Amino acid sequence: MKRTDVLDRLVPRVVKASASAEQFAPSNIALCKYWGKRDRELNLPINASLSVSLDYLGSHTRLIPVDGQRDEVWLNGQQLQPGARFSQKVSAFIDLFRRDQDLYFRVETRNNIPTAAGLASSASGFAALTLALNDALALDLPPEQLSILARMGSGSACRSLFTGFVQWNMGLREDGMDSHGIPLARTWPGFCIGLVEIDAAEKATDSRSGMQRTVETAHLYQSWPLQAAADLSKLQQAIEARDFELLGQTAEQNALSMHATMIASWPPLLYWQPESVAAMQKVWQLRAEGMPVYFTMDAGPNLKLLFQREDRDALLKHFPGLETVEPFGP
Amino acid sequence: MKRTDVLDRLVPRVVKASASAEQFAPSNIALCKYWGKRDRELNLPINASLSVSLDYLGSHTRLIPVDGQRDEVWLNGQQLQPGARFSQKVSAFIDLFRRDQDLYFRVETRNNIPTAAGLASSASGFAALTLALNDALALDLPPEQLSILARMGSGSACRSLFTGFVQWNMGLREDGMDSHGIPLARTWPGFCIGLVEIDAAEKATDSRSGMQRTVETAHLYQSWPLQAAADLSKLQQAIEARDFELLGQTAEQNALSMHATMIASWPPLLYWQPESVAAMQKVWQLRAEGMPVYFTMDAGPNLKLLFQREDRDALLKHFPGLETVEPFGP
Repeated sequence: MKRTDVLDRLVPRVVKASASAEQFAPSNIALCKYWGKRDRELNLPINASLSVSLDYLGSHTRLIPVDGQRDEVWLNGQQLQPGARFSQKVSAFIDLFRRDQDLYFRVETRNNIPTAAGLASSASGFAALTLALNDALALDLPPEQLSILARMGSGSACRSLFTGFVQWNMGLREDGMDSHGIPLARTWPGFCIGLVEIDAAEKATDSRSGMQRTVETAHLYQSWPLQAAADLSKLQQAIEARDFELLGQTAEQNALSMHATMIASWPPLLYWQPESVAAMQKVWQLRAEGMPVYFTMDAGPNLKLLFQREDRDALLKHFPGLETVEPFGP
Repeated sequence: MKRTDVLDRLVPRVVKASASAEQFAPSNIALCKYWGKRDRELNLPINASLSVSLDYLGSHTRLIPVDGQRDEVWLNGQQLQPGARFSQKVSAFIDLFRRDQDLYFRVETRNNIPTAAGLASSASGFAALTLALNDALALDLPPEQLSILARMGSGSACRSLFTGFVQWNMGLREDGMDSHGIPLARTWPGFCIGLVEIDAAEKATDSRSGMQRTVETAHLYQSWPLQAAADLSKLQQAIEARDFELLGQTAEQNALSMHATMIASWPPLLYWQPESVAAMQKVWQLRAEGMPVYFTMDAGPNLKLLFQREDRDALLKHFPGLETVEPFGP
C-alpha cells in the first residue's frame, strides 16, 4: 500500500491554512526493539516494541511558510543542501501533506542529542515535525493518528509522540491504521537512563538498511519475532510490578539479541566499537559486584544504562560525566 | 546412555598389555562450528560440523605406566595437582579404559598452542590421549572407533583424529556410534590459516558451560541447527570447487552466528575483547580494499584468519608476527 493512500484517509487534500508552528518531541529508548519491517513503504514492523521517552532530550522543530518552490531544511542551526539525505527525507515527508499545493516551509530542527549516533534523533525529529505540521496546517488530528503519520517518516517516531512508557503495537492491517504508539498509564519515579557516548559520528550503515540486511541474510533473525513477543510481555509485567531486575534483564537481553541478529548477517553488521565492548564489560563487572545496572543499545556504538536513582552517585564514579535522564522525575 | 555402556562395545574389560606410548594429534579449526549438545554425557552434537586440522600445531601426549594408585598428569612440563580441572578430566577419561583394574599412568601432554584460549587444545589433547591409549593398551581400534572414544573426552576431539578437512556427522543413534569424524578426500594446497592471538589467558567460561547456557537461554539458538546444516553444505561445495570466497564467507558468517547465539544468552556470553573487535574491523577493512581474507573464531577472544598463500606477504604487513599454518602445504 502507498503512503499517499493512507494519507487520503487522515489529511484533507486541500489544507485550510498554513501558519508558523513550533513543537517538541522527545527521543525514545526502546526496551524491546523495533527490528525488521513487514512493509517498507509504511514502516510497518514485524514485531511490537516498547520504549521510554527521554523527557527533555529530543527535537525542537519550527515550521515557517516560505514563498519559494521548495523547502529549506535547517539542522542544528545549519542550512542543509537540498540534496542532503536528511533534507530529502524531510521534504518527502512534507510532500505527503502538501500534495500538489504550492506549500513550502523553512524547517528548523534542533536536536539536543547527538544526531544519527544511535540516539534515535530521527524518531524525535519526525515526531516533532508531525506535531508541527498538525499545527501549521490546522489538521487537528488526535494523537494516535499523528503517531501513524510520524511512523511513515521514521518507524520509531510513532513512539516519540508520547511521554513515559510507550508501546507500539505491530498491528495486523495492511494499511497500518492499527500500528501506532500507545502510552502506558504506569509511571516509575526514580527510573534512570544514562547515556554513554562512545562515538557521536554518523553511522556507516543507517538502521533502515541494517534492518533490511538482517531480515534478508541472517538465519537467526527467524527466531527474533517470537523473542520480541516474549520480551514485550516480560517488560509489561516488570513495569506493572516495578520489578527493576526483570526490566533490566529483559531489556539488555533484547538489545543484545537484536545486535546478535545483525552480527549474524552478511556482510556482518557490527555497530560496536572496541570501546563499546569495554563499556559492556564494565557494566557486567559492576553487576557482579552487586549494583543493579543494565544496558541497552540501538543501531550504533553507544550504551544506554538503565538504573535506579539510588545508585546514581555510585554509578557516576565509574562513568564520570554520564548524562542522566529521569523520564518520570525523581 | 552412559559412557561406560558405549565403552563395553569398543574396549575389552581386561586389557591385554600396558606399555609406554607417545602420540601426536593436531588442533583443528572448525569452519562450521559444533555448538550445542543433544547428549551431554556422550558429547553428541545438535549439528554436524566441519573443520581443518592444523598440521604440526597440536598436542603430544606420552603415557608411561606407573605403580601408584592414581595418574600423574603433566601439562607443558608442569605436574598438575590431582584436583586440577584438566587433571580430573584426563583421569576420568582413562577410567573409561581401565575399569576396575589397577592401571595408572604418568600422562605428559605438551601443547604447542596456547591452552584454553579458544585454540581447541582440549580437542588435540583428547585426540592424542586416545591414540596413545590405543597403543599403550594394545587396543588396535580403527580410526572411526578412536574418534568415537575421543569425542567422549571432548566433543571436537573426534575431528582431531584426522588431518586435512574433517566432517563430524551428528549421527542419529542414541549411543553415538554414528557420530564421529570422517576425513574428506579433498585437499587444498595454498590454503592458509593465521592465528591472531588477542589473549592467551584461560577463559572465564569454558565452552562446555557456554554451550549449555546458550542452548538453555538464547531464543535465537533455535535457528542455529538449520543454519549450521546450510553452512555445512555450502562448505562442502566450496571445498569441492576450491571456491575460496564461498568458503571464507560461509566460515565467517557461521562463526559470527555462533557468537551471536552466545551474545543472545542470559547472562550474556561475550568471549570478545575490545581488541577482538579492532581485529575484526581490520579484516573487514582489508576485504573492502580487495584482499580476500576472512576470519573464524571459537569460544574465545582470538581470531583465526583464512586466506590464500599468495596474499600472505601483504597480510603480514597488517598483522605482523602472524603465525601461519598451511594444512595442505604450499
